[in-house]
Amino acid sequence: MSGRIDTRLAELGISLPVPAAAVANYLPFVISGSLVFISGQLPFAEGKVAVSGLLGSGVSIEQGQYAARLCAINLLAQARSAAGGDLDRITRLVRLGGFVASTPDFTDQPKVLNGASDLMVEVLGDAGRHARAAVGVAALPLGAAVEIEAVFQLD
Amino acid sequence: MSGRIDTRLAELGISLPVPAAAVANYLPFVISGSLVFISGQLPFAEGKVAVSGLLGSGVSIEQGQYAARLCAINLLAQARSAAGGDLDRITRLVRLGGFVASTPDFTDQPKVLNGASDLMVEVLGDAGRHARAAVGVAALPLGAAVEIEAVFQLD
Amino acid sequence: MSGRIDTRLAELGISLPVPAAAVANYLPFVISGSLVFISGQLPFAEGKVAVSGLLGSGVSIEQGQYAARLCAINLLAQARSAAGGDLDRITRLVRLGGFVASTPDFTDQPKVLNGASDLMVEVLGDAGRHARAAVGVAALPLGAAVEIEAVFQLD
Repeated sequence: MSGRIDTRLAELGISLPVPAAAVANYLPFVISGSLVFISGQLPFAEGKVAVSGLLGSGVSIEQGQYAARLCAINLLAQARSAAGGDLDRITRLVRLGGFVASTPDFTDQPKVLNGASDLMVEVLGDAGRHARAAVGVAALPLGAAVEIEAVFQLD
Repeated sequence: MSGRIDTRLAELGISLPVPAAAVANYLPFVISGSLVFISGQLPFAEGKVAVSGLLGSGVSIEQGQYAARLCAINLLAQARSAAGGDLDRITRLVRLGGFVASTPDFTDQPKVLNGASDLMVEVLGDAGRHARAAVGVAALPLGAAVEIEAVFQLD
Repeated sequence: MSGRIDTRLAELGISLPVPAAAVANYLPFVISGSLVFISGQLPFAEGKVAVSGLLGSGVSIEQGQYAARLCAINLLAQARSAAGGDLDRITRLVRLGGFVASTPDFTDQPKVLNGASDLMVEVLGDAGRHARAAVGVAALPLGAAVEIEAVFQLD
């Protein structure tokens, strides 16, 4: 591949992982009309959760931002798969749903999720700007510090 | 009715309940274009919440899976209503949003939600495979252990 | 403006605020096809969060309902902006995603969110009835008691 977005990824030194396969009766993504709904992604790197624990109790904002960035990279890997390998077919990131594992007194979820939002705009440019919800949840799968789901628009 | 999905439900011994009516200024579902957005469903059975409490504190994974299965059955009851009584018009389950009432150290939300994902594929076949987000929340309405919302695609 | 919905807002004595601007690499809303995805809104009034803290610990149901109403007003302000200033182009509120900052034993999230659902129907009439998910989360941005995101349908 040598599309525009692939070139941008290479410039940024980002290598998208092989997208995680479905491990149960659900799928990494479903396409409906022009929308791609992507399952919640965890901050996996090299096959394991890279950042686990709660923000507000041991996980710093910087570590949370790194976790959010990893979730975003995994979302892009799924989006590339949904687009048949051609990220240039992604015309828009529509929405991110961001869940940050948080103690009741941690209220900087937006700063954490900026790790994902910034990555999306770095890679996709203006098409990476999106609507977003940012909430603090009690716990996440595998103890991950962050989980992010997405809706993209395909051409 | 004697549609394909109705036959499948009968084979599985599943009887869909009368879908819960709206109890306030919101609706059990809204259709927009080809998408049906269904409100978060609780694990109601015979008019009351069948599984309440927190995963990680008194509610077992098996009980959580049963709760998720009940949520899925209630989602299908709403989907049938949205499809004018004909579940064969449901061409796809697009997305499940799964919320599991969890203590901060419970991290098996995916196992719990498999109770819903498995039911959807048992009933709808490949059309029941879906994108999914699974998170652990602090508390749910009426003390329910699980709440699940859905987006279906209608023909 | 003197549209039908603007007249209704005036009758109700509701003045929509200037919608909050984007403060990072995300947007207050994204339009995709006929759907408008609006970012999670907090209970801002006059530039600050009007209701903060947890339901079940210091924030009453009535205060929570007021917070939800403020979120709804901010969602309408964003929807008006998405519709180019003309709220009459909003043909439907499709979905509200409601997050209530809750202690583990607070289970009246639906009552809290009725503050938003009721406002939507007061302003938009039947077009304001919507699908809804209501969950209790550990914490929200800036310590807000409620956050609500929305999907509207434009003509």
